[in-house]
Amino acid sequence: MKAVVFDNGLKLEKNYEKPVPKKGEALIKVNTIGICNTDYEITLGYMGYKGILGHEFTGVVEEINDDDKSLAGKRVVGEINCGCGECEWCRKGLERHCPNRSTLGIWKREGCFAEYVCLPLKNLLEIPQNVSDEEAVFVEPLAAALEILEQLHIPPYKKVVVLGDGKLGLMIALALNAAGLNLTLVGKHQNKLDIAKAQGVKTKLLNELEIKKEYDFVIEATGSVSGLETSLALTKPRGTLILKSTVAASKEFNFAPVVVDEITIIGSRCGQFAPALRLLASKRIDVKPLITDIFKLDDSIAAFEKNQEKSAIKVLVKV
Amino acid sequence: MKAVVFDNGLKLEKNYEKPVPKKGEALIKVNTIGICNTDYEITLGYMGYKGILGHEFTGVVEEINDDDKSLAGKRVVGEINCGCGECEWCRKGLERHCPNRSTLGIWKREGCFAEYVCLPLKNLLEIPQNVSDEEAVFVEPLAAALEILEQLHIPPYKKVVVLGDGKLGLMIALALNAAGLNLTLVGKHQNKLDIAKAQGVKTKLLNELEIKKEYDFVIEATGSVSGLETSLALTKPRGTLILKSTVAASKEFNFAPVVVDEITIIGSRCGQFAPALRLLASKRIDVKPLITDIFKLDDSIAAFEKNQEKSAIKVLVKV
Repeated sequence: MKAVVFDNGLKLEKNYEKPVPKKGEALIKVNTIGICNTDYEITLGYMGYKGILGHEFTGVVEEINDDDKSLAGKRVVGEINCGCGECEWCRKGLERHCPNRSTLGIWKREGCFAEYVCLPLKNLLEIPQNVSDEEAVFVEPLAAALEILEQLHIPPYKKVVVLGDGKLGLMIALALNAAGLNLTLVGKHQNKLDIAKAQGVKTKLLNELEIKKEYDFVIEATGSVSGLETSLALTKPRGTLILKSTVAASKEFNFAPVVVDEITIIGSRCGQFAPALRLLASKRIDVKPLITDIFKLDDSIAAFEKNQEKSAIKVLVKV
Repeated sequence: MKAVVFDNGLKLEKNYEKPVPKKGEALIKVNTIGICNTDYEITLGYMGYKGILGHEFTGVVEEINDDDKSLAGKRVVGEINCGCGECEWCRKGLERHCPNRSTLGIWKREGCFAEYVCLPLKNLLEIPQNVSDEEAVFVEPLAAALEILEQLHIPPYKKVVVLGDGKLGLMIALALNAAGLNLTLVGKHQNKLDIAKAQGVKTKLLNELEIKKEYDFVIEATGSVSGLETSLALTKPRGTLILKSTVAASKEFNFAPVVVDEITIIGSRCGQFAPALRLLASKRIDVKPLITDIFKLDDSIAAFEKNQEKSAIKVLVKV
């Protein structure tokens, strides 16, 4: 099968071996793939991963290695973390923290940037009929955005700011705004901010923002090393700074203000798919304006290049 | 009056002006003073403070500039943050976060390292009869230790580790152990650990500790820049790292594990005095073994030198 593989370099392989579902797994014929910044970071060495890239997809279940055939032929998305099923994390539904987990296209498991992908049946969710593949492929980053609400209670009268108007920042702003929060999205790109503004999100250009400790909750989604310091400078004493970007290069950082102002910093990663699919099906947010371009699998290398353009938001690939 | 003053250098002044209580304030004749590492950090430039040092004291109320004379002649301790009384923080009892606060011997207010000190009446608490001056002078750092329980709910079945066997680490270990937590104190000095051990605290030498993500709550009280990284390496996914030291030199720090493991980092500073006084009066902890030496006010410079010795824990000064 065709597959986009990272192994010291990024390559479109034409004759990669088609995966075979293990017991309890399904083979999925991939339909749509999303490029995430994590994919790009992997090509820079993140996680030391080698193999098929990709963890955002929609597809159709083609084969099931299990007695339960209820998902046969269904259009699905798939949770990306595969846990051992036995540890305290898996028992709590937090497979994303299982110490023996594999993660689709990131850690010990071939990704979805190919014609076919395998995942455990329990990772799969059927896509509601009124959600297109081009929308459903956003479920993974949207779940990561909603993870903030899994971790924290943010009362609707508190002041929230999202820093960063890239794809993650936009998704977070749309998702939390839809949840009724008192939120401002801050970024450097008027055209990107306008996408959120068109859906009712309050927005502000970074250079028009007064840097003042006035936000109860600050969400860092710039993916840049300076973003964190700006975030801290915006956080009220006893406020909460939510770290969403894994970019996290080593950086000098003075923790004194964290102690003096008794700030809480919370790392936030993957979330559950069900609430994200529900939000997409509700049509209370529209992710389609985030799509910059759609490529064919044969043109995946060009798709990755497009993803790196400053103006790009979400680049999709159709198989 | 005599006073220990920092102004580019540390000096014992013999004829410093005796303070005069403003409306609502009391003049306190100081009895016992504790040296805190913050005092030492101020002599290195922390907060840019100049003036009388010191924020840990006991004393007797000698004069009151107010109609309410109920504290006249009483033995007292005093909360160190003086707020505006009007802002949202002061109204919540969190004067320590008032943006217009002054802080005894740290920020915009002369400290207690002298024969006399002034503080607002509302900052003063009478010392219970069964608590000596040498014990009561620990109330400020003990309140800072108990601040952790003001900020967080730590269930008694969760695994807690305190890193650092200096005065702050010891106080935290004693206070939280007395609260029934499942706690281990880790440090580099067997003789210091033994003080906590004698009061029922589980202890471990750092070089005997397995560095593994197994603690739900990790309390960083080493005051050293490497302590933070060890702390992070001990924190379980979704666990909480509590930062107690303001030492906070700029330090390279990789935030990726914070995001991947969804760690919560909480800065923690001053706490309320009442629960700390209550704990001292209950005799469930004994702070006296932490006293390394007691100097006279005239020998304060030697007391500061003693405080810097590796073996020192708490150095007191009697006026």
